[in-house]
Parts: sequence; structure tokens; C-alpha cells
Amino acid sequence: MATDRLSMIFAALADPTRRAILARLTEGEATVGELAEPFDISLPAVSRHLKVLEAAGLISRTRSAQWRSSRLEAGPLREATAWMEDYRRFWDESFDRLDAHLKRTLARNEENHHD
Amino acid sequence: MATDRLSMIFAALADPTRRAILARLTEGEATVGELAEPFDISLPAVSRHLKVLEAAGLISRTRSAQWRSSRLEAGPLREATAWMEDYRRFWDESFDRLDAHLKRTLARNEENHHD
Repeated sequence: MATDRLSMIFAALADPTRRAILARLTEGEATVGELAEPFDISLPAVSRHLKVLEAAGLISRTRSAQWRSSRLEAGPLREATAWMEDYRRFWDESFDRLDAHLKRTLARNEENHHD
Repeated sequence: MATDRLSMIFAALADPTRRAILARLTEGEATVGELAEPFDISLPAVSRHLKVLEAAGLISRTRSAQWRSSRLEAGPLREATAWMEDYRRFWDESFDRLDAHLKRTLARNEENHHD
């Protein structure tokens, strides 16, 4: 597995439970118990997901073992989005081309109907 | 490994060689040989990366085995970015809060200097 920062961020996002945990944390800090509640998974399983998210920098955790809570960190998501933004130009062009193609096709169909 | 579409997209992006291959494909279609050239990896290794990208829908490949070429598909990158966009609100707020905090700190330092 690649261990560069951006790869670790994307790998951490490649799991629906981890993405749901991040979504929950946008509402504020939460303990492992609070994070486990909506999911049908054990506390150790949630802890493992939190470790992956923490290693990628996507969350930070307070030190206190008993009431350890997690919070979302905005930086890495921003970084990953910045990477994706470079491709926006490409897909905007793709969709522009598709759009132009559809318009031509529609125009041709219109012409055929009028024949 | 999660096999939902968004997880497969993020997992495919979690590798620097695969991201470099996508970057190369924004310039146009390319064969396996052309894609392998800038990297210090074997053709079979490139083929394995292309399989992961194809399974995630990030590229499509022509049928012809001999001159099989790959092209970037815009849809999945767009989908992954749409997911990230939901978090933009969160990190914009984070940075606004940080900005406000820094301004207050600077203002306080200014006051202290004038005392």
C-alpha cells in the first residue's frame, strides 16, 4: 500500500463506514461509543477505522483514554479536493463536448422531422 | 475491501502511479507501453494498475488487444469530487474560525504594544 500523504487520504476515504464517520464528525466531536451507535459494528472495529482516519490526518483525537473523542480535521480533505480540482477542467471539457454532440444530434433529428 | 462505487474510486486514487497515469491520460489516449515509459515499472505492473482504474470506471479501454489504448473517463472523478464538495462548507468554516482567531490575536498583540 502506498504511504504518501495523498494516497493515505484516498485510502482512508475508500470505505463507506469511514466516510459516514467523517460525515458524523462534521456535526461536532464524538466518542467511539457515539460513533459506533448508528452502525452495526463493534467498538474495536470503529477504533480500527478511527486509526486509519487519524493516520491520514483526517481526524485528531484527544488524549484522555476514558472519554477520548474524535474531531474532523479539514486540511487533508482540502488537499484531496485540490488534487481533484485539476481534473475539473478535463471533465468540464468532456461534458461540453458531450453537450455539443447532443445538441448537434437533436438539431439533426429536428431537421429530419421537418423533411 | 469495500466494493461500492465511491470506495472503488477512492481506492483506485490511493496510489501515486495510478494518479500519474490519470494525469497522463488527460493529454489523450495512450497504450500500455506509452503509459509505462515515464515510470520505472514493468508492463504487467502498468496493466494491473489499469485494471484497477478500469474497475473503478476511471478509464475505459479499447478492445483491440495489440494496440489497446486507455482513455480517461470524467464521470467517476466528478462523482468523487461531488462527495468532497459536501465538506467544503465544513473546512471553509474551520478556516474562517482560524482567520477570526488570528485577527483577534493580532489585535491583542497590537494593543499590548501600545500599552
